[in-house]
Amino acid sequence: MVRRLEFPARQRPRVVIVGGGFGGLNAAKVLGGAPVDVALFDRTNYHLFQPLLYQVATAALSPAEIAEPIRRILSRHRNIRVYLNGVRAVDVERRLVAHEGGEAGYDYLVVATGATHSYFGREEWAAHAPGLKTIDDAVEIRRRVLLSYEEAEQEADAEARRAKLTFVVVGAGPTGVELAGALQEIAARTIPRDFRNIDTSTARVVLLEGAARVLPGMDPVLSARARRDLERLGVEVRTGAVVTGVEAGGVRIGDQFLLAENVLWAAGVQASPLGRSLGVQLDRRGRVPVGPDLSLPGHPEVFVIGDLAKIPDPRYPDGLPGVAQVAIQGGRHVARIIAREVGGDARGGARPAFRYRDKGTLATIGRNRAVAEIGRLRLAGWPAWVLWGLVHILFLISFRAKVAVMWDWLWNYVFYAKGARLITGSPRLKVKRVLREEEVAALDARDSSAGP
Amino acid sequence: MVRRLEFPARQRPRVVIVGGGFGGLNAAKVLGGAPVDVALFDRTNYHLFQPLLYQVATAALSPAEIAEPIRRILSRHRNIRVYLNGVRAVDVERRLVAHEGGEAGYDYLVVATGATHSYFGREEWAAHAPGLKTIDDAVEIRRRVLLSYEEAEQEADAEARRAKLTFVVVGAGPTGVELAGALQEIAARTIPRDFRNIDTSTARVVLLEGAARVLPGMDPVLSARARRDLERLGVEVRTGAVVTGVEAGGVRIGDQFLLAENVLWAAGVQASPLGRSLGVQLDRRGRVPVGPDLSLPGHPEVFVIGDLAKIPDPRYPDGLPGVAQVAIQGGRHVARIIAREVGGDARGGARPAFRYRDKGTLATIGRNRAVAEIGRLRLAGWPAWVLWGLVHILFLISFRAKVAVMWDWLWNYVFYAKGARLITGSPRLKVKRVLREEEVAALDARDSSAGP
Repeated sequence: MVRRLEFPARQRPRVVIVGGGFGGLNAAKVLGGAPVDVALFDRTNYHLFQPLLYQVATAALSPAEIAEPIRRILSRHRNIRVYLNGVRAVDVERRLVAHEGGEAGYDYLVVATGATHSYFGREEWAAHAPGLKTIDDAVEIRRRVLLSYEEAEQEADAEARRAKLTFVVVGAGPTGVELAGALQEIAARTIPRDFRNIDTSTARVVLLEGAARVLPGMDPVLSARARRDLERLGVEVRTGAVVTGVEAGGVRIGDQFLLAENVLWAAGVQASPLGRSLGVQLDRRGRVPVGPDLSLPGHPEVFVIGDLAKIPDPRYPDGLPGVAQVAIQGGRHVARIIAREVGGDARGGARPAFRYRDKGTLATIGRNRAVAEIGRLRLAGWPAWVLWGLVHILFLISFRAKVAVMWDWLWNYVFYAKGARLITGSPRLKVKRVLREEEVAALDARDSSAGP
Repeated sequence: MVRRLEFPARQRPRVVIVGGGFGGLNAAKVLGGAPVDVALFDRTNYHLFQPLLYQVATAALSPAEIAEPIRRILSRHRNIRVYLNGVRAVDVERRLVAHEGGEAGYDYLVVATGATHSYFGREEWAAHAPGLKTIDDAVEIRRRVLLSYEEAEQEADAEARRAKLTFVVVGAGPTGVELAGALQEIAARTIPRDFRNIDTSTARVVLLEGAARVLPGMDPVLSARARRDLERLGVEVRTGAVVTGVEAGGVRIGDQFLLAENVLWAAGVQASPLGRSLGVQLDRRGRVPVGPDLSLPGHPEVFVIGDLAKIPDPRYPDGLPGVAQVAIQGGRHVARIIAREVGGDARGGARPAFRYRDKGTLATIGRNRAVAEIGRLRLAGWPAWVLWGLVHILFLISFRAKVAVMWDWLWNYVFYAKGARLITGSPRLKVKRVLREEEVAALDARDSSAGP
């Protein structure tokens, strides 16, 4: 059997990190200075700045502006090796990780494979309602959104045109709210002058949320404000709206069917399947329950961090939320524990418990509109929006990206222009019928009366 | 039968433009001010700045930096409609264009569908040697190039590793030369510190040219200089090298086989197949012979411009070269003819002949290295490189893109860093065998002796 050994020599303890997201990357950075050999595995060659992914999906940013090669980020740490391999399973008894290229033995393991969107067991919905977790997801959503305007421009049947110009976002967490706001801005501000046969400002953006309010994770006051801002932008917000079906051409809400060619999924979250191989009982969202030090019960050498972990905290009955800060702080915490123990302290000695410092929650709705919750502070409108922008620029990995994103944002702000309106991959136009002369004329008349 | 009519009313002459490249776009811009209704058809929704496409393929630029939505470029011209449709055929007798959405009638037709790379009738080579004509081509080449370093990092078999680290570029025209130079810079400067098991600076970049010299279209003095510069960079240049086969894992030159997992095609050019439906005898490269006014013989209402046209010129025995300037100037020329004739002059009256003004040829080899041929002037080295940079920034469509590209170039120049090193699409690692401990150790030793 092929046995993989990532490690040149065995003098130093071997640490395997699975996942190059916020958790894994921050663990690696801390261990870069420790007397260990580190192997980091990821399915992709880049670290993705998830919080801005929706801007790639809505053509405001390019993928390269929010993704940096993991190798490059860690290149100065000579004790870290990066491997582009997905990890299939962990054998906690034999202390082996099975990945696409073979197996890797470890002395310490950090599992940080995060979570993906879930369709509540209705995987067949995925084809009609793409979620937003990877660069490829974002580019595919961008393709669908832009393509459906192109199709509408050529669609003569009024109902079909309406469906192509209806965008439904399922789930009103931060990502859903941000997607809906950006889609509305595209329709109303970015592209109206570019089309002739359709008036894109009549496009309909519908935000569906099963809970009683948008941004359920935030203060009700801010939820109300976010809803008001969304509605002022022109977004149709429906709370208490339970999606009972997603099919080609529309979405079913309760027993009502909403015609929509574009349904985007920003709802459920499901932890990475790798958790199943850790031999413990997972919670309903597939998360791995961990001890106060973030280690796996019975396996002090295995740590689980970020969205994959169910981290106990008196302040959070359902465990810590799946946000970047929990992953970042968790990654640093376990790396310090490892560094300390390999530094000589007795293995398994009393470890510090992980204490999450909540730095607050931010969500942007559109230009000059956002909500922020920082400790007891509540912000909305322009100040929250500026804060949101600063924080996100600040946390971008590279200075190159910071400047590039600022430039695109500035351009976008001044001209309402989205810089990355590219339909890549093969566009398949599905035109039912093409316009008759009088139809074009009619549309034209309306167009010019609406005119600039 | 579905009959498409792009045109709201018939008072004004209808002009159909096929293709949104340099030729079609410039024709459209001129016609934006004329009393005509214009419909522009293109398979993609963006105008691509071809000259910098190789920088997307080599991770220096993002697609959105060299592509702008055609709609946006033309949005201020209310008499122009843009349709995302490929055009299948032209019926010059019935004056109809058959496209994916139906048919379009015209009073004037401008065909500007350009050319693509040709494998000299060996289409089976395409799978193993991707060419570089579209954004998707460029992203695929980027994926393959970056992925093969990732595979090499995990490849234990020395010969297989060698093959993964060998990059062959077929064709030493400007694109081939620029690709080879950029691939060499990636290997030697951009990524060496990012890998542990391989020394990327030992990667081999081979540039193959069937002719006796690189840049055959330019002055022999500059060809010699370009070759010297390429070799100084570390590129292996082989002229008079005729490729007799391309297969998985390598390329055949005469009767010699060169092991290489990465073969990039920058050789033959074949005009767009649309020319076949125009009912005239095409030349061996599929180009449409046109009259001095760029119209189709016997059809003064049909113009063919850019790479698709074989344009007679006493200075060029084989017709005008397939460069951007010929397309741009041709597009403006035919648009002015149309504008003049719809403006009242007798249709078919004496039309001015197209006179191409050669503004010169530029090719860059790598940082501080380029060659330029402008009239009688010959430039090489740093001045030519600066000129190349200025000209390309200047001709980029949008100010947004100009600034973005300058920033990426500046960053790249200072840090040798490529900003867009993303492997998108599903990376399939094909690792033959994984490293044994001593192998990693050996590679390691060599690595550290080679040092940062």
